[in-house]
Amino acid sequence: MHLKKSFASDNWSGVCPEVMQALQEVNPAHNEAYGELNDPVTEAAIEKFKQHFGEDIAVFFVYNGTAANVLGVGQLMRSYHAVVTARTAHLNEDECAAPEKFMGSKILELEPQEGKIRPGQVEPFLNSIGFQHHAQPKVISISQVTEMGTIYTIKEIKALADFAHCHNMYLHMDGARIANAVVSLETDFRSITTDAGVDVLSFGGTKNGLMFGEVIIFFGKEKAKDFAYLRKQGMQLHSKMRYIAAQFDRYLTDDLWKKNALQANLMAQKLAGELQKFPQLKIAQEVKANGVFCLMPAELIPQLQQDYFFHIWNESPETEYVNLVGEDTNKGGEGNGLVGEDTNKRRIFKEVRLMCSWDTTEEDINNFIQLLEQKINESLAI
Amino acid sequence: MHLKKSFASDNWSGVCPEVMQALQEVNPAHNEAYGELNDPVTEAAIEKFKQHFGEDIAVFFVYNGTAANVLGVGQLMRSYHAVVTARTAHLNEDECAAPEKFMGSKILELEPQEGKIRPGQVEPFLNSIGFQHHAQPKVISISQVTEMGTIYTIKEIKALADFAHCHNMYLHMDGARIANAVVSLETDFRSITTDAGVDVLSFGGTKNGLMFGEVIIFFGKEKAKDFAYLRKQGMQLHSKMRYIAAQFDRYLTDDLWKKNALQANLMAQKLAGELQKFPQLKIAQEVKANGVFCLMPAELIPQLQQDYFFHIWNESPETEYVNLVGEDTNKGGEGNGLVGEDTNKRRIFKEVRLMCSWDTTEEDINNFIQLLEQKINESLAI
Amino acid sequence: MHLKKSFASDNWSGVCPEVMQALQEVNPAHNEAYGELNDPVTEAAIEKFKQHFGEDIAVFFVYNGTAANVLGVGQLMRSYHAVVTARTAHLNEDECAAPEKFMGSKILELEPQEGKIRPGQVEPFLNSIGFQHHAQPKVISISQVTEMGTIYTIKEIKALADFAHCHNMYLHMDGARIANAVVSLETDFRSITTDAGVDVLSFGGTKNGLMFGEVIIFFGKEKAKDFAYLRKQGMQLHSKMRYIAAQFDRYLTDDLWKKNALQANLMAQKLAGELQKFPQLKIAQEVKANGVFCLMPAELIPQLQQDYFFHIWNESPETEYVNLVGEDTNKGGEGNGLVGEDTNKRRIFKEVRLMCSWDTTEEDINNFIQLLEQKINESLAI
Amino acid sequence: MHLKKSFASDNWSGVCPEVMQALQEVNPAHNEAYGELNDPVTEAAIEKFKQHFGEDIAVFFVYNGTAANVLGVGQLMRSYHAVVTARTAHLNEDECAAPEKFMGSKILELEPQEGKIRPGQVEPFLNSIGFQHHAQPKVISISQVTEMGTIYTIKEIKALADFAHCHNMYLHMDGARIANAVVSLETDFRSITTDAGVDVLSFGGTKNGLMFGEVIIFFGKEKAKDFAYLRKQGMQLHSKMRYIAAQFDRYLTDDLWKKNALQANLMAQKLAGELQKFPQLKIAQEVKANGVFCLMPAELIPQLQQDYFFHIWNESPETEYVNLVGEDTNKGGEGNGLVGEDTNKRRIFKEVRLMCSWDTTEEDINNFIQLLEQKINESLAI
Repeated sequence: MHLKKSFASDNWSGVCPEVMQALQEVNPAHNEAYGELNDPVTEAAIEKFKQHFGEDIAVFFVYNGTAANVLGVGQLMRSYHAVVTARTAHLNEDECAAPEKFMGSKILELEPQEGKIRPGQVEPFLNSIGFQHHAQPKVISISQVTEMGTIYTIKEIKALADFAHCHNMYLHMDGARIANAVVSLETDFRSITTDAGVDVLSFGGTKNGLMFGEVIIFFGKEKAKDFAYLRKQGMQLHSKMRYIAAQFDRYLTDDLWKKNALQANLMAQKLAGELQKFPQLKIAQEVKANGVFCLMPAELIPQLQQDYFFHIWNESPETEYVNLVGEDTNKGGEGNGLVGEDTNKRRIFKEVRLMCSWDTTEEDINNFIQLLEQKINESLAI
Repeated sequence: MHLKKSFASDNWSGVCPEVMQALQEVNPAHNEAYGELNDPVTEAAIEKFKQHFGEDIAVFFVYNGTAANVLGVGQLMRSYHAVVTARTAHLNEDECAAPEKFMGSKILELEPQEGKIRPGQVEPFLNSIGFQHHAQPKVISISQVTEMGTIYTIKEIKALADFAHCHNMYLHMDGARIANAVVSLETDFRSITTDAGVDVLSFGGTKNGLMFGEVIIFFGKEKAKDFAYLRKQGMQLHSKMRYIAAQFDRYLTDDLWKKNALQANLMAQKLAGELQKFPQLKIAQEVKANGVFCLMPAELIPQLQQDYFFHIWNESPETEYVNLVGEDTNKGGEGNGLVGEDTNKRRIFKEVRLMCSWDTTEEDINNFIQLLEQKINESLAI
Repeated sequence: MHLKKSFASDNWSGVCPEVMQALQEVNPAHNEAYGELNDPVTEAAIEKFKQHFGEDIAVFFVYNGTAANVLGVGQLMRSYHAVVTARTAHLNEDECAAPEKFMGSKILELEPQEGKIRPGQVEPFLNSIGFQHHAQPKVISISQVTEMGTIYTIKEIKALADFAHCHNMYLHMDGARIANAVVSLETDFRSITTDAGVDVLSFGGTKNGLMFGEVIIFFGKEKAKDFAYLRKQGMQLHSKMRYIAAQFDRYLTDDLWKKNALQANLMAQKLAGELQKFPQLKIAQEVKANGVFCLMPAELIPQLQQDYFFHIWNESPETEYVNLVGEDTNKGGEGNGLVGEDTNKRRIFKEVRLMCSWDTTEEDINNFIQLLEQKINESLAI
Repeated sequence: MHLKKSFASDNWSGVCPEVMQALQEVNPAHNEAYGELNDPVTEAAIEKFKQHFGEDIAVFFVYNGTAANVLGVGQLMRSYHAVVTARTAHLNEDECAAPEKFMGSKILELEPQEGKIRPGQVEPFLNSIGFQHHAQPKVISISQVTEMGTIYTIKEIKALADFAHCHNMYLHMDGARIANAVVSLETDFRSITTDAGVDVLSFGGTKNGLMFGEVIIFFGKEKAKDFAYLRKQGMQLHSKMRYIAAQFDRYLTDDLWKKNALQANLMAQKLAGELQKFPQLKIAQEVKANGVFCLMPAELIPQLQQDYFFHIWNESPETEYVNLVGEDTNKGGEGNGLVGEDTNKRRIFKEVRLMCSWDTTEEDINNFIQLLEQKINESLAI
């Protein structure tokens, strides 16, 4: 275990005390399993979701985000349908083809701009509609917050939802970090989902202080017809369901979700601010949520990772030269590394991702910055 | 939540205090996710498994028993292979076709005797070997404890393992209740698995005092080649893996597994003993683990279920007549109900399943028996 | 190639001259592929089907019976649904788990009587309805002619269809040998399908004089919504579709289907009649279509197979003793072999299947009988 | 049926007379089904393949190209593996997600140049190797001839094969039009497959004068272990296999394959030559095989399609302006249409695909050109 908080991912963090306590409180005695027989713990949690998202929803607890995505999208599709999403989407890149395996469907990739996709990009796929040789686009999937740390505005979400609905399609939202998005947009959950036309949502919590579990929310109960069977078939029906339900119940009470996400977002702002002070570094995009994408000299990375592991965001940088001292970097595409060059030295830069969590403190940031400063001085010979 | 302990299933019970504490102890600060980067919590837990099962094993944490079965078996098969199992196996009846879906394979059913299958029953399927029109039998799967509450002897397991290995097949063991079996057999884990020729084991804990998680153990590391990808693709890779690992680490320490299972088994013995005192009831099979299968008058069932929910084991009883007063019941097949008849009254009996848990106490049994007695007096007009 | 006609299967036979000619006639010049763009050859064939089955049908050409079954049934199911069928059904035993693989669904087996299943047998599976742990029965599948050579009466089909429809299920008919059934019942196609309540039919032709291709017919166009995509995804969309369509067009014209099936059925009658003259043989069931199931001394089989290959119907006979001289054999179960015993000699019998084809002649039968007689005399030392 | 030869696709053509005759010659009497029992027709055809490709191959007959691709690639992969191919590959775009469905695997797309992919493009995917969240690249798939009508040189194939083998991957070749490629390269089959390092080949014939059927060839018999089961499970095992085998046997005899492909290629050369005479048209790429990709004024297309259907190659042109009179068109990407502009008129161009077949004659070309000329004069008001 690490006494030092890392910036590797928001799933390196633990369980926040309120949720740990909720788990203890729901623990004594026996309780209906599988959410069956009107399990009061599950029902209470579902009520909480209705308070945030509206009445006409169907709520299902599963184990993780990959499953929430695959099953939530799969519910709305037959195998010959396709889901359209950003190339960088977790659904596309980081689920080890669970969508293809479980849904038996194709994923149609779009090249995102700043992590986001636009209706116009989906248009060409409409040409496939009615052509029996082509998978039929049926669901558009977006991530909120995106994998690049960016956030769709409500207007952007509505545009995608409208586009989808106009074309007999659905809109899915991967909300693994939805709380961070809502906090960043200073709004509430329903404004970016129910009211924006989202059809199905993967509502995450594990990255924001929970222990395990994720929620699938269908907007419009009829969309969830028979879904319980798909969940079980997807190996996602937890017997002791009270432990998932109780976490989310507490999470949605007294703005705990907001408190945790706000802390993470604020810390990311602070971290970015501190990083920007270093001329050897460059923040790759404006920080909107709890992730900081930073261009960093390659040789610095393993030195920092020894104490603070973090991920290089793209291992195949298309490199360009950048002047060491503050010149604009030409990124050369989404998340590519750079070769830095100044009058004296050429430097390869890579894009790294630093994530802040619900429990990241100012002290954690300061400690990291201290180490960074030390390593920069030692190795970069500026 | 129920202050009263039910007998519906051992997954209605909560988390035992030692495990809850282990979860709290592993909670502070950050930890590697996904079991990656030599996560010390995951590695420590794996070591515990090696102490119990031997060195040459590969251990993977997943979320539940359905997944452990499907992925553990699926790892050893191509889609045109088949798994042979009892008709009553959880894998066959209670996974909503997750095996068929995820493995794309056929399940070949055998009619069990007292919940168990024998090598001789598998023989006819060998005729399919080499015939391109037939799914090729590749894995035999047994449940230990079986779904009927019975237990395979070590000799029986070895016979099945030998048979499987002779025919280029593997033996899988669904050990959702393996602790209860080991306690009942007064042996240790490796005697009924590693040393008995089992190739892959679903090692359960949720039914014996854990919160969530199950373990897949491959006997022979080479069998686990590339399994991590299958687990991820099966939507079973937990990010905050320390919470699963820590539970199993504690579970395997200081015989906690044994303490919990022993309590459940003893309570089942006691419960059966008390039930046998009622002439209107009949214990369907000898109690070997923590489940009691009892033939009970049908009209009594809903009355008891109001306070103590439990499952009717088979909704389609093949009925026969039995004398009210202590005559031997002719069961008429695995888990069938009976029609009772004596000189005065005809009664329909159904087989119910009563499960004891790690936290079932003598007091719980006594309370249940009291209610039973009361209801019998009221409604059965003896 | 064999100048001698075998009795191995009706798919050992070739293409009847009328169909070969139809293939040649449709060959010249170019034609729309994939049945697209109102391909006149495909449309004309579909019209023929409407003449025989009625107007409200949807017709799709695929390559073979396995595909027709899997895709036709799969169209009406989600993966968590189940298809209920006889254990001996081709869908269950002889498709190498193509159903499980492509549909991702469970097959629920029933033990047939004389190859047929009854509504009462399906009833117990209804208990699963609404229980999230169980695959949900959705389609009942029967074979007409059955794999045991028997035939469902119209009344039996209606009973199954009614039962299915009462329970929100569908009825599928595997009609690989439907022509033989229709001829045997002295009726027409629609009486045993459209008018009997069948929802989807695999209409075979390859076993009755065609070269390749099979047809899926949905009764009620709405059942075929989007099916073209499933067919393509099932790798069953033939580019040069005119060659499948033209065969079936000719097949349904001027009762060619009837002529071919009648010949096969008549020859089976004759063959059975001849076989019955041998006391060492016993016809296992009344011959209704083109297959003869015959109990034959085991040592005779390889000798005959050298000249006339045929299949042993069940390699794991449960054996019983039968008197050599004409005593009633106790079959001991569906398709089991027997041990024959009389005062002098014990003999093992196996059930073999002899199939007659559209091109089987009386001369073929006589030649076979001659050889049989010779071999019996040589080897059985009567 | 059309007396006029179209240029829609080479699968609009019929069966060449030699193959039709081979079908008739193999028709009489009975023959082993499924290629079993040393079916002499199947074995003879396999021998022919060995003559062309070498001894150490395994040959399997299936129904069509989609199946050959999906099963051939799928044989070499587990579901968590991925196949890397051009975005425009038939496997990726035109199989209605049959790969995803049947293999359960991801397809990793590369943007082709002139329809071809290069090892360097595959490199970035190697970063996924060993990362449990990512599908593991395992097969590189190329089409020979490509979907853009271009052809890989032997050197290019070897480079891809070497790259694949260096990284524990395989090379698959979709040879739906392999004959056209071999003729164009003036080489033989084995030079571009066996000797170039291809691991599995989809060997097509339907587009070059056959009626149905396609062949999967594994280079190295060990790669085909148990493949017969996968074929059956993939619904691709034809009972009357002699009809597929006999076609390919004849196809590989006396250079029939070469004769047919040469005719198609020559006609494509001629067609391109004729089209190039029109200033309103532009050949999009050098014609290497039997396909001509031509940029054509959009308003002309429906007028021509009435008599000669053909496909627009890309429905979403990224348009640019081109001068009417012979100026270089900036294609703006693979297969995009153009907006033509000269001092007087703006014109939208689209890329169309014209395919020549084994039976396309000079007269057919001339007739088409005549109509083209007429329509151009009428409608383009030059």
